[in-house]
Amino acid sequence: MDGAYRLTEGPTKAMPIVTLLTDFGNTDHYVAEMKGVLLSRAPGAVLVDVTHGIAPGDVRSAAYILGRTWHRFPAGTIHMVVVDPGVGTNRAAFAFSANDHRFVGPDNGVFTPLLHDAKVEIVVLDTPESASPTFHGRDLFAPAAAALACGVALQSLGQPFAGMPDRLAYTQPHYEGKTVVGEVVYIDRFGSLVTNLTSDLVPKYARLEVEDLDLGPLRSTYADVTVGGLLAYIGSGGAIEIAVRNGSAARRLGVGVGGRVRARLG
Amino acid sequence: MDGAYRLTEGPTKAMPIVTLLTDFGNTDHYVAEMKGVLLSRAPGAVLVDVTHGIAPGDVRSAAYILGRTWHRFPAGTIHMVVVDPGVGTNRAAFAFSANDHRFVGPDNGVFTPLLHDAKVEIVVLDTPESASPTFHGRDLFAPAAAALACGVALQSLGQPFAGMPDRLAYTQPHYEGKTVVGEVVYIDRFGSLVTNLTSDLVPKYARLEVEDLDLGPLRSTYADVTVGGLLAYIGSGGAIEIAVRNGSAARRLGVGVGGRVRARLG
Amino acid sequence: MDGAYRLTEGPTKAMPIVTLLTDFGNTDHYVAEMKGVLLSRAPGAVLVDVTHGIAPGDVRSAAYILGRTWHRFPAGTIHMVVVDPGVGTNRAAFAFSANDHRFVGPDNGVFTPLLHDAKVEIVVLDTPESASPTFHGRDLFAPAAAALACGVALQSLGQPFAGMPDRLAYTQPHYEGKTVVGEVVYIDRFGSLVTNLTSDLVPKYARLEVEDLDLGPLRSTYADVTVGGLLAYIGSGGAIEIAVRNGSAARRLGVGVGGRVRARLG
Repeated sequence: MDGAYRLTEGPTKAMPIVTLLTDFGNTDHYVAEMKGVLLSRAPGAVLVDVTHGIAPGDVRSAAYILGRTWHRFPAGTIHMVVVDPGVGTNRAAFAFSANDHRFVGPDNGVFTPLLHDAKVEIVVLDTPESASPTFHGRDLFAPAAAALACGVALQSLGQPFAGMPDRLAYTQPHYEGKTVVGEVVYIDRFGSLVTNLTSDLVPKYARLEVEDLDLGPLRSTYADVTVGGLLAYIGSGGAIEIAVRNGSAARRLGVGVGGRVRARLG
Repeated sequence: MDGAYRLTEGPTKAMPIVTLLTDFGNTDHYVAEMKGVLLSRAPGAVLVDVTHGIAPGDVRSAAYILGRTWHRFPAGTIHMVVVDPGVGTNRAAFAFSANDHRFVGPDNGVFTPLLHDAKVEIVVLDTPESASPTFHGRDLFAPAAAALACGVALQSLGQPFAGMPDRLAYTQPHYEGKTVVGEVVYIDRFGSLVTNLTSDLVPKYARLEVEDLDLGPLRSTYADVTVGGLLAYIGSGGAIEIAVRNGSAARRLGVGVGGRVRARLG
Repeated sequence: MDGAYRLTEGPTKAMPIVTLLTDFGNTDHYVAEMKGVLLSRAPGAVLVDVTHGIAPGDVRSAAYILGRTWHRFPAGTIHMVVVDPGVGTNRAAFAFSANDHRFVGPDNGVFTPLLHDAKVEIVVLDTPESASPTFHGRDLFAPAAAALACGVALQSLGQPFAGMPDRLAYTQPHYEGKTVVGEVVYIDRFGSLVTNLTSDLVPKYARLEVEDLDLGPLRSTYADVTVGGLLAYIGSGGAIEIAVRNGSAARRLGVGVGGRVRARLG
């Protein structure tokens, strides 16, 4: 069915999508204040909450979720990321275009999944004098996202960004003899452990271990083990995941982010 | 005011509604991935979150919430339900039309409120080869819902479903002499206990009991008891509910789903 | 950038915004039932969740969040507030227009931020006979909001409201010699303490205290203290806030709503 029914014409031009990814939670007024600004300045924009449930200041999780989601949206989408523990410091605020998508947020590494190379054109947003020093989401990023949604050119939003954007350092998987060693990078709601071992590193015949527990061979899907059984498989993001069928691997194993995972190739 | 101001013409045709009901939670990337797919393939679709807060794999609660909500939306709405603990097993994935609404999701009983009779036309969705075996919400159900939103005929989405769809078994209320005996089927955020005793089974003069506690006669509304008082009344879904005015009956009584409720008719 | 790119023409007329602010939570069916009613009666309305995470019956927090958000939305927006512990009592249900925005909800003080003076025209909504006595959000307020979204005049929705609307009593800051004494009125997700000391009451040279702890001078922003440091500053809503940089002041200080805050002016 892939793509068969995709509409090639539609209201995407007239109604640009703005996604919101923050650590503001769903109980306070912050998200609604930003949405009010967005809809006041860009009437007709389609707002999509990616999540507001990032733990306060957890830039690393926000980067993971951004990396998992942005490319699912149509070209032209504007992604606003406000996980910004450095608001009110001298961290830069910027906007950039990459892969036909637009991004707005702080220069704190949260955009690492998009900033693989130096070719991205980045614009530094000026902070309006009237902006609250503690709520750039409302007073700086939302107006910039709204401007982009209204068709304003990226270059009009500020000066070119001269330096190198902040990027998160990731531990890369490494080899110990015939074993690839990686780690847990994210744990989802179901208690599944997402690792940094991508499918290109791990052949189908590999045996997986987490901490010192043997998980057996790589499985295709949950049905390959009984209910309550542990398994390792290639997850929906292309990386090895460890789960309990109809249960929580995080709870079962007591393993958190950073936990060691091994794929034995021989 | 009922219906007086309803618009008979409007953009419902051009902008079909897709509702989403899942157990994916609001903190991970899963919901946004599905929304990206939906908006990429069906630009202009109006997405409505029913809830993503179903406990992981709780098909029974999801069925309850689907039954409470689908008919409030306009005809033509597409309801995507992804509470799917059997993803990656051989459970069927299907789409069907009922009461002028469309439904997409797994064959696991979650659609029981819609599948009262055998007259519903069901189509089995083919699983694309490229689909992640653990995320049919993104790779199977969202594309199917988007296709329906774009006006693709249900029949084009797959082959007719030959068997009987999975249905949840519900304990039916029964009579013990002049008493109707039912049970608690859902507990809401406020701690109110929703039962399976519908108003047609319980006359206005009945006296209610939960476990062995007498609740007195059926009340009309909260104001019939003092603040902090227990009451039984006909809830907004048409079934007897038990609540504490401005409090939580679940906490007060320690009664959970399955708790016994009696209506004494004489 | 303020306002520079605001569109003066757009689909706001054709697609009115309806905001929703409730204590219904995000796991039950209540919010979706209301949205189904809204979209059935006002197709094309743009629904924005302010929050559904108000603690059950917490009218005071709801009023705070309404006061922080309504004016960020464009003129013409309809704000539906259903934090309604008195549903099913004889509290009035009403709709009114203020500052070119429209408001629908119960007469229980939740609209205090809008009801500063007596000039607001208020209409009492009739309760339809078919309305559930325990779910006016779905059967009374959503139909009224939908009618307004469809262009129905406020006056058509009911009779003029004769009495005085319910208003919350707020403790006002007071002077003790050269000290302004206020209190904590809201605590946000980050554990920041929002006070009722507004910037017009507190000059820049003031020194702040919470309970008996000296916070030093008023700061501009988080960067004025080290990570983990306590600070007081003018928050994004115009009132003094007390926070821990990259931490939680509520957890650090153990201070809750009602906690005493002092600004020493000399």
